Amino acid sequence: MTRRTSTSQGRPRNAEATRQRILAAARKEFSGHGLAGARVDRIAELAGANKRMIYAYFGDKDRLYKALMERQIAEWAEAVPYTPDDLAAYAIGRFEYMRAHPDVRRLAAWRTIEQSKATEAERSIYQARIDALAAAQRAGKVTSAIPATDLYAMVARLTESWLSAAPALQATSRDPLGSKRLAQHRKALVEAVRRISAPR
Amino acid sequence: MTRRTSTSQGRPRNAEATRQRILAAARKEFSGHGLAGARVDRIAELAGANKRMIYAYFGDKDRLYKALMERQIAEWAEAVPYTPDDLAAYAIGRFEYMRAHPDVRRLAAWRTIEQSKATEAERSIYQARIDALAAAQRAGKVTSAIPATDLYAMVARLTESWLSAAPALQATSRDPLGSKRLAQHRKALVEAVRRISAPR
Repeated sequence: MTRRTSTSQGRPRNAEATRQRILAAARKEFSGHGLAGARVDRIAELAGANKRMIYAYFGDKDRLYKALMERQIAEWAEAVPYTPDDLAAYAIGRFEYMRAHPDVRRLAAWRTIEQSKATEAERSIYQARIDALAAAQRAGKVTSAIPATDLYAMVARLTESWLSAAPALQATSRDPLGSKRLAQHRKALVEAVRRISAPR
Repeated sequence: MTRRTSTSQGRPRNAEATRQRILAAARKEFSGHGLAGARVDRIAELAGANKRMIYAYFGDKDRLYKALMERQIAEWAEAVPYTPDDLAAYAIGRFEYMRAHPDVRRLAAWRTIEQSKATEAERSIYQARIDALAAAQRAGKVTSAIPATDLYAMVARLTESWLSAAPALQATSRDPLGSKRLAQHRKALVEAVRRISAPR
């Protein structure tokens, strides 16, 4: 049992700590089992909370999942600066983030399997990014030969092309995720992104 | 109950039909539930076979999965001609195949989640493809600025960049998988693959 104390905003300090623990547990559960397979009681157990607290703070499983997805995209947007004028720099940042966060890659793979719907908050983040890329195209800093939506999607996928390659393709390298191989891949990634984005 | 008749090779004809039914059922079960979540009794029920037949023909669940993966890669290799001298043509072929086979994309997504091991037969298919691409590079038909392994992995991912885009990214298009949007994407895909593979 934890005792609640109040912050200066009057919000229980331990309530915030509990929210954080629940979200961390949710991340583990959803990345391991997907939306359909995740179980709220396992999340509660992992978080050292009880199910009622989860329902009180987040609502049902779907809402908890949404809260996690929105938090996830916000964390990622903060960690990886988006630079539409320099997509190669962005690609390297995204690559490093994905390398360091296999759970994020698993959450994305579950979405492919489960086709879970995007929230409006998520959609608007992507829309703003596409708009910024289109502006860079109009300014002549990025090629206009590829529509901004496609270019954005392609750069995103390129950053995971080796990390999420088919196991049989990775197996053609002796140490597929070793530092030497990844150094080679980083250079290849920069070259590829420069090539697809360079104005002619 | 089916009666067995023998082919001229002496192989029971119905045995072959049963194998095919089991593989089709396995594809459905593994693409829906992954390797860990798949259940042999569901596969048996779906195939109108019994578990003993599955064990007799394929062995345990792991072996059935391997047999499916190897069959899958063989079907795909036959359906999509690999043309290392013209990666844009290959990319379009792969795109159409992935579009027509969402179950193949789901099987691949499960592999990302489950990190299931590649078989040696699968690995050698990829190795042959990388070798052929390296030969096209030496012949000056494809850029050498990107190592063959990376280039192969990148082209593969580009062909799924829109089909497997984050749901929130797809949601920025009004009809993300409609024929108009896909026509636009095909053009973008050809442009991107030409750009990353063109010799300078």
